[in-house]
Amino acid sequence: MHLPGLDIVVLGEDFDRASVRYVATWGPKPGSLSDLPALEAIFSLGAGVDHLMGYPGLPDVPIVRVSQDDLTHRMSEYVVMHSLMHLRDQRRFDADQRAKRWEPDRAPPIAAQVRVGVMGFGALGQDAARKLKVMGFDVAGWSRTPKAIEGFEIFSGEAGLERFLARTDILVSLLPLTRETRGILNRDLFKKIARDGRLGGPILINAGRGGSQVEADILACLDDGTLKAATLDVFEVEPLPQESKLWTHPRVSVTPHNSATSDAEMTARYIAQQIRRHEAGEPFQNVVDRARGY
Amino acid sequence: MHLPGLDIVVLGEDFDRASVRYVATWGPKPGSLSDLPALEAIFSLGAGVDHLMGYPGLPDVPIVRVSQDDLTHRMSEYVVMHSLMHLRDQRRFDADQRAKRWEPDRAPPIAAQVRVGVMGFGALGQDAARKLKVMGFDVAGWSRTPKAIEGFEIFSGEAGLERFLARTDILVSLLPLTRETRGILNRDLFKKIARDGRLGGPILINAGRGGSQVEADILACLDDGTLKAATLDVFEVEPLPQESKLWTHPRVSVTPHNSATSDAEMTARYIAQQIRRHEAGEPFQNVVDRARGY
Repeated sequence: MHLPGLDIVVLGEDFDRASVRYVATWGPKPGSLSDLPALEAIFSLGAGVDHLMGYPGLPDVPIVRVSQDDLTHRMSEYVVMHSLMHLRDQRRFDADQRAKRWEPDRAPPIAAQVRVGVMGFGALGQDAARKLKVMGFDVAGWSRTPKAIEGFEIFSGEAGLERFLARTDILVSLLPLTRETRGILNRDLFKKIARDGRLGGPILINAGRGGSQVEADILACLDDGTLKAATLDVFEVEPLPQESKLWTHPRVSVTPHNSATSDAEMTARYIAQQIRRHEAGEPFQNVVDRARGY
Repeated sequence: MHLPGLDIVVLGEDFDRASVRYVATWGPKPGSLSDLPALEAIFSLGAGVDHLMGYPGLPDVPIVRVSQDDLTHRMSEYVVMHSLMHLRDQRRFDADQRAKRWEPDRAPPIAAQVRVGVMGFGALGQDAARKLKVMGFDVAGWSRTPKAIEGFEIFSGEAGLERFLARTDILVSLLPLTRETRGILNRDLFKKIARDGRLGGPILINAGRGGSQVEADILACLDDGTLKAATLDVFEVEPLPQESKLWTHPRVSVTPHNSATSDAEMTARYIAQQIRRHEAGEPFQNVVDRARGY
């Protein structure tokens, strides 16, 4: 529809492999990307490319991340909403409603008194940070590599991580999954989050990748007070297994990896736009850096 | 502390009534404001003045509304959070978590596809509207009297109300309680809210005054589909009586009139600042218009 001159086929169906010039995929099945001699680019659906980077024998063509404004906006909706729910103690009021208990909070903190730390300060992190700041939160960022973004203190690297955590009440992870970030959200890190804030203990929001979190540590840290609460959209295994204690923990909010699902129509338009650029001799945008892994 | 030259007494305690120059009150007890010959002003605590306006024999001195930035910010936190919770169908995901059900929403609307209508477009309404807009919502306002605020379409009066409701998916009421707004949130009004939006039906958020809503109509309209859901911070009778069906309705969120509680320290500072202005010969700010009732 958006590319009248091209045919669209579905991987796995019967088609002429020699004619395939572009592939759009999230997590390709083994073998599905092999034997495509005319391949010019792979479009990665969704914000993360870790599923694709782990593909054995990934063809040596540009991997184009499908970057969409609506995915970014959705992620910010999720991050701002859940940060506000923690600020406003919404789970306490949910429980009060179930118990028909009328107990206004007489001295609640306002957003300006609560420090949010955003780990992963790419397009998603920056948009979320900007909106958190408009809502009044005291926001800083952490990035693997040094970054300067007007209006935000951004910590970087190993050295910056401790200082970043020491000024953070609500930790929001939007990290991509790479060798460096696998299991990074563990007890060692949780212990370093500030404990002198207005919310009564460190709060974790992970809307990045489940592989970044150690779920056994999250549960143990919630139970011994190292963490006060957690909101998790991503998990080590998805769908989250029925037997996981995260489902029923009273201080865990679980959502089914839908913080920032992308819209099929918007995705189609973006891919069409990139193919038109490429066929007009312009470079693709949002090409993945294979060395960094994202 | 903020006014070294003045003594502070508590209404109801024993003190020299002839010496009282300022009163700070929310809902004064009958008789407590009588016989204060030196009274120069009444400071109304909280954003609304309806409790005060109903006082028989209210002294004829300026009534100064205690307007505080933190109260405004808190209200915006509440409005944005609950608007996002409806946009993101958070109550469905809460129920899914309780049932250990993993069902991502494949085609959720984004904020830009959802129309929020803010009734009451004073300081609180404008701040909330601005922040809703930053989050992406399509925001308009309704005001009793015509208003022009850069960036927003503002409907006004009876004539504008129908057009305003016809373009609204989430109706946010921040209305003061006056003769005109008592009972305004009723079936007649709910029937006029748009039904062609992305959320599956009209949603009501009332963080204004409980006297503006007809709770029997809200319950009936939820049950016959005229309303999809409601978030209520205020009620006809507060605390909300144990027997109210609002507590347990599956599509009602109840909070205990704490959308925007004010901080005692900030309140004290604001009052001190106004008294210093007044004693320096400057006019009070935020004086209530008795004819309008707010």
